[in-house]
Amino acid sequence: MAIGGVAASVAGAERAAEAQDAGRPSATVLPGMEYPRVHADRRVTFRLRAPEARRVQVVAGGADNGLGAGPFEMSRIEDGVWNVTTPPAVPGFHYYWFTVDGTPVVDPATRSYFGWNKECSGVEIPDPAHDFYEAKKVPHGEVRSRLYFAEVTQSWRRAMVYTPPGYDEDRRKRYPVLYLQHGSGESERSWSEQGRANFIMDNLLAEGAIEPMLVVMENGMVARRPGAPPMAATGRPARGNEAFGDVVVKDLVPMVDSTYRTRADREHRALAGLSMGAGQALQIGLGNPAVFAAVGSFSGVAPEGFDLATSYSGALRDPAAARKTWKLLWMGAGTVEPARILAMKKVADTIRTSGIPVTWFDAPGLAHEWQTWRHSLKDFAPRLFRSAR
Amino acid sequence: MAIGGVAASVAGAERAAEAQDAGRPSATVLPGMEYPRVHADRRVTFRLRAPEARRVQVVAGGADNGLGAGPFEMSRIEDGVWNVTTPPAVPGFHYYWFTVDGTPVVDPATRSYFGWNKECSGVEIPDPAHDFYEAKKVPHGEVRSRLYFAEVTQSWRRAMVYTPPGYDEDRRKRYPVLYLQHGSGESERSWSEQGRANFIMDNLLAEGAIEPMLVVMENGMVARRPGAPPMAATGRPARGNEAFGDVVVKDLVPMVDSTYRTRADREHRALAGLSMGAGQALQIGLGNPAVFAAVGSFSGVAPEGFDLATSYSGALRDPAAARKTWKLLWMGAGTVEPARILAMKKVADTIRTSGIPVTWFDAPGLAHEWQTWRHSLKDFAPRLFRSAR
Repeated sequence: MAIGGVAASVAGAERAAEAQDAGRPSATVLPGMEYPRVHADRRVTFRLRAPEARRVQVVAGGADNGLGAGPFEMSRIEDGVWNVTTPPAVPGFHYYWFTVDGTPVVDPATRSYFGWNKECSGVEIPDPAHDFYEAKKVPHGEVRSRLYFAEVTQSWRRAMVYTPPGYDEDRRKRYPVLYLQHGSGESERSWSEQGRANFIMDNLLAEGAIEPMLVVMENGMVARRPGAPPMAATGRPARGNEAFGDVVVKDLVPMVDSTYRTRADREHRALAGLSMGAGQALQIGLGNPAVFAAVGSFSGVAPEGFDLATSYSGALRDPAAARKTWKLLWMGAGTVEPARILAMKKVADTIRTSGIPVTWFDAPGLAHEWQTWRHSLKDFAPRLFRSAR
Repeated sequence: MAIGGVAASVAGAERAAEAQDAGRPSATVLPGMEYPRVHADRRVTFRLRAPEARRVQVVAGGADNGLGAGPFEMSRIEDGVWNVTTPPAVPGFHYYWFTVDGTPVVDPATRSYFGWNKECSGVEIPDPAHDFYEAKKVPHGEVRSRLYFAEVTQSWRRAMVYTPPGYDEDRRKRYPVLYLQHGSGESERSWSEQGRANFIMDNLLAEGAIEPMLVVMENGMVARRPGAPPMAATGRPARGNEAFGDVVVKDLVPMVDSTYRTRADREHRALAGLSMGAGQALQIGLGNPAVFAAVGSFSGVAPEGFDLATSYSGALRDPAAARKTWKLLWMGAGTVEPARILAMKKVADTIRTSGIPVTWFDAPGLAHEWQTWRHSLKDFAPRLFRSAR
């Protein structure tokens, strides 16, 4: 043991500690499953049984995924099982999947999460510094699945509606509403499943940090009906989310106001979203000042050729008027996001320079990931509906 | 065209019709996905892209799965895509997955459903004779995700709670409660996702066929805490669902009664479940006559050595007393289920012969599958809480 001196024995002790740190199953694993395991230093061990496979990899969902860029080659260990331990990951929720001889395969050991337009596996890396998105021993609201018929699409649609604790108790109390949107390739369930928006709201409420509010989460991927004309405003061909603004204004907001005890005026409605949803929040929110008075852009993409006079339906054309109209204009991003997203800060500066207040939020060391959006919601929600207090 | 006479041209026309019947994507496919496709004659075409694979199969979830026993060998067609069309399937929801060179793989084209203790793919075969489980243009209730802390397990648990249309409107109205359980390897989401219990209840309500009621769906796979003693009643080692009865009686029912506007007495509570959940319904329901007055067994397994005096906690020991205690004792099964499940009919007959009424329900031509349980709920629910009318 003494051979090689102090340095070697320290290294040996580190190796021994590492070997002993078997880690803990990710919070995303299915009952009885042991992998992926997250180690104390945030390395992650993945396993998959695939006895006949010739090559198995872990693929992280996206180039700026907090697991690292990957793909990570797995090695065959005993009994047809493949194994890899990745370098330390960034805290938060990360999408991933395997490829088995080139075919994408979800991990049979974790719950599935809809992202990247498909069912993905997910791993949750705990953050020792933050637990604001964990289920704590505080009063919990409900997440309600609400079916409604949308005239715009002529189809049944589903909204997920967070009601705060106590909603059912006092029949006379009415609530402001935050409409909160997912990113491209996700769904109305993403904010509660991946984002844990309900726990974030429960915890903020328990601290007295926010006004009690409803949170309505819908699916932003709403294509126009076949044969329908392109968006009048742009004339661009369909991208698959063109009709969402119509659904929000003509179907969703009226349904929510007629179904729930809301404060049904613009001062008590906000619209926010992440990534693609951030673009939708700015377009639909600023484009409908009769409906919304507050807008949040979580990791939105900076518009090419941003122009105060014409961008966002010209809502910011007249700074004096815009200052009165918009109660809150909030933008944020992770500090290590891609350039087109970080460029949004310049958009915020341009708006601010015109005299319209913009709140900018930096999520330190985080990329285009759910941890950024959890932090964004935690900063954004307490700023909403403050005049209502 | 006339060559070969009438018979040949009829066969040719059939082949042409078959070729033209490209089918429709299953109701379970993800947005934009085309397969599996269900044909008019209920054959199903599955596809998977796996260019490097040597053997790909469709595996039906269970030997009596309505898709057929399988596995179904897929053939490589153009561009690395594998394809198979199965024989006509039984209507309803069926679990399946692929194996790619022996490794189980979910279909990336459908939503995932938790069954067989894992995420599975699902296909929905329409039934031209029945639409009672479809979303129709009727008032819809909500399915609410409700977190609560269970003292029995010392952990946060999730109940899914169906509230009927109008629940939020009349604050004075109180509701009876049906506790409705899934089968082995499923979860609290199965009855709403696979079973469509909420649409079944919405439709029965719209027809005036049932009393408005809450439906509470929890997760029956509740293991005792590590180190906890075995069930006092049986002394058997843990199977993974031993603590569910304690959770129901000590945590779930009290939480539901204190959170929702229920009629909090035994006459207004029923407990039903399918397969493993049927066994739990009989054990926990009949074992707790102070809590429940109605029990439903959907495709339950006949107990070995059934004895009126001792089985089901001796609840049926005294037929005269049992006739007064139990408002409804309901049992049912598909007519082509396995022998141990069909043997339940003899148990029902034995109970009936003792003078205790039992309602028996046959789901014609159906096996141990969700379509049986949808039909079971449709027959069971209208019989509940009739004295409440």
